Amino acid sequence: MKIGIVGLGLIGGCLGLDLRRAGHWVYGVSRRQVTCASASAMGAVDAAGLDLAALSTMDLVFVCTPITAIEPMVAQLAKVLSPEAIITDVGSVKASIVAPATQLWPRFVGGHPMAGKAEAGIEAAEASVFLGRPYVLTPLPETDADAISQVSQLVQQLGSHLYAATPANHDQAVAWISHLPVMVSASLIQGCLSEPDLTIKTLAQQLASSGFCDTSRVGGGNPELGLMMAQYNQSAILRALLAYRQQLDSCIQAIQLEDWPSLVEMLQQAHEQRPQYIDEPPRRAYSNA
Amino acid sequence: MKIGIVGLGLIGGCLGLDLRRAGHWVYGVSRRQVTCASASAMGAVDAAGLDLAALSTMDLVFVCTPITAIEPMVAQLAKVLSPEAIITDVGSVKASIVAPATQLWPRFVGGHPMAGKAEAGIEAAEASVFLGRPYVLTPLPETDADAISQVSQLVQQLGSHLYAATPANHDQAVAWISHLPVMVSASLIQGCLSEPDLTIKTLAQQLASSGFCDTSRVGGGNPELGLMMAQYNQSAILRALLAYRQQLDSCIQAIQLEDWPSLVEMLQQAHEQRPQYIDEPPRRAYSNA
Repeated sequence: MKIGIVGLGLIGGCLGLDLRRAGHWVYGVSRRQVTCASASAMGAVDAAGLDLAALSTMDLVFVCTPITAIEPMVAQLAKVLSPEAIITDVGSVKASIVAPATQLWPRFVGGHPMAGKAEAGIEAAEASVFLGRPYVLTPLPETDADAISQVSQLVQQLGSHLYAATPANHDQAVAWISHLPVMVSASLIQGCLSEPDLTIKTLAQQLASSGFCDTSRVGGGNPELGLMMAQYNQSAILRALLAYRQQLDSCIQAIQLEDWPSLVEMLQQAHEQRPQYIDEPPRRAYSNA
Repeated sequence: MKIGIVGLGLIGGCLGLDLRRAGHWVYGVSRRQVTCASASAMGAVDAAGLDLAALSTMDLVFVCTPITAIEPMVAQLAKVLSPEAIITDVGSVKASIVAPATQLWPRFVGGHPMAGKAEAGIEAAEASVFLGRPYVLTPLPETDADAISQVSQLVQQLGSHLYAATPANHDQAVAWISHLPVMVSASLIQGCLSEPDLTIKTLAQQLASSGFCDTSRVGGGNPELGLMMAQYNQSAILRALLAYRQQLDSCIQAIQLEDWPSLVEMLQQAHEQRPQYIDEPPRRAYSNA
């Protein structure tokens, strides 16, 4: 297959490395010549350039730009690609992208590879990042079946676990397990910072250990990513936040009323059900506090 | 020094291993003969038994029982020890313990070694668990200076970083960085479980990755530990929870009102200030969601 990748950042670079290994011919498009050169040098693309027109002969194009640029990019690609070409994207929210993009290009298939690294940029790209990770496709009822099938085959070549969901269900699911944790975790850091007694605040900073470290990690991440989640997944993230606040209020109330059976039941359920979300091996952890 | 350890669980066992290596003679007391045998076999104690009377000649005793048992244990030890002996404990809350224990025994010094492992019990004990970790002492104004000095020396022999704090300041600091994260994290799991749409709930479980894993880890821990935190540190944990809820409400409001500058400011501050609490090397993490 001749595959185009628009946006040679971390995800675009990782896709290029894996797709070339799978035997595809990959052309990359970036806004910067230096990025094209890096991508070529590291073998993430067979060739690269600044001009979208070079994608006119591609069978399929991955749009790997930031979320804000996906829809405008599909509009530009629509002027360039042959009608049989497929467009897919890698944006982490789908409802706000898939409907307008499908209007612009009937053979558009929304996708979300749920993998990545803390680092950004083509320099951080490496092979096999998608191996064993979820990759969600979010076709609409009217999405071309052949286009879905072709993108699905590529996803399987990446070694990803393929899931299908409606855009709305995808967005609510990632609101729960990806976007809500960011807001919960950032609020935790903000709460600690709000301590007015400097002696206590400093002591807390000195004593913070693995429990605080893990719980605060995603909240201390890239602020622009957090903003994007909120802007592009506003209703789903609000729905999750409001349901979360109800749980938090129940917890607060149980402690206020010394309703220990309710608190234990809540903690017990969290303990028992967490493996439904993630099953990790036990590891050394701060437990005596 | 002749040192007694009452309660041969994980912390008692770890202390025994390190104190013996530092040249002290260690006698362990447990309620179960099999635990005494294990502790002896693994070299965590020089000798061990069921009877507190054997501690009558000790210079210092570590009380390593669960929090609920600390005060009653100090009362029992007061009938056995010589008046010069020092008692210290390892409980993770201090205000509710230190004042009554000091009433019972003037040479009581409250302590909290902030180290541990996910596993419990003497079998999980190992050397050097306290090395490089915080160890907080929480003396009262009336606490004997010589007793503080002797416990401090032992803490330094463990290789721990020694901190001093009032019991109340200790409790508020650990409420922020240890107890609040448990409630925040358990509420996150409960929030996700509250999703009424089974398709979305199942998809969320399938897609959950490192971000959810880390943010939910301490909330999915031992329910009895969480209960103990709430019971013994009720006012400090409530103060932290209510301040946290204010931050959460600001976050929710910013998203509801599309007040993106406020949301970015909050996320930016969390990003910038988190290293004040914990500075970790970057690691591979799910970032594209």
